[in-house]
Amino acid sequence: MPQPPYYAVIFTNQQTSDTEGYSEMADAMEQLAQQQPGYLGMEHAREGLAITISYWETLQDIARWKENLDHLQAQKLGRDRWYQWYKTRICKVEREYEFHKS
Amino acid sequence: MPQPPYYAVIFTNQQTSDTEGYSEMADAMEQLAQQQPGYLGMEHAREGLAITISYWETLQDIARWKENLDHLQAQKLGRDRWYQWYKTRICKVEREYEFHKS
Repeated sequence: MPQPPYYAVIFTNQQTSDTEGYSEMADAMEQLAQQQPGYLGMEHAREGLAITISYWETLQDIARWKENLDHLQAQKLGRDRWYQWYKTRICKVEREYEFHKS
Repeated sequence: MPQPPYYAVIFTNQQTSDTEGYSEMADAMEQLAQQQPGYLGMEHAREGLAITISYWETLQDIARWKENLDHLQAQKLGRDRWYQWYKTRICKVEREYEFHKS
């Protein structure tokens, strides 16, 4: 992960009861994202609400990933079947700090 | 939640095996955050990794919350006991979009 500034996409969602095919698609999209220019990493957790954050070098990298054809198809399936609600926030990471227990 | 720009604090962490008192403190800090100027909301999920995102109107609101005395004490306890690792990212939310299933 580089020093800031870089970019984060915060994707927060509530799923529907239809989960068929979801985790396979999520895995496939994570693998596909890793192959895109400017991809820096991904963090995910779910506990009722699901949060997925992906990190990117530039806004252009994010725009290109959003328009990737396989990703567009996954987004459409998500809206048709898997997501009750989602919110996507495009963010500039301006500062960061880290702690490791010694 | 206002229109962008506003700010997000992405707090990603791995906990230690010592969880005593953690959830009570997390609840207390969420309630205290809600009383701070510029607080906009919070999202949380944990699945191994824990992600907590808080949203704020300005960078100054974030700086003031970071220096709140009760919050400083909670941060110290977190480093001493509850967190194996954490990373905090201060982000400017530049753009967002939302989907609701009809």
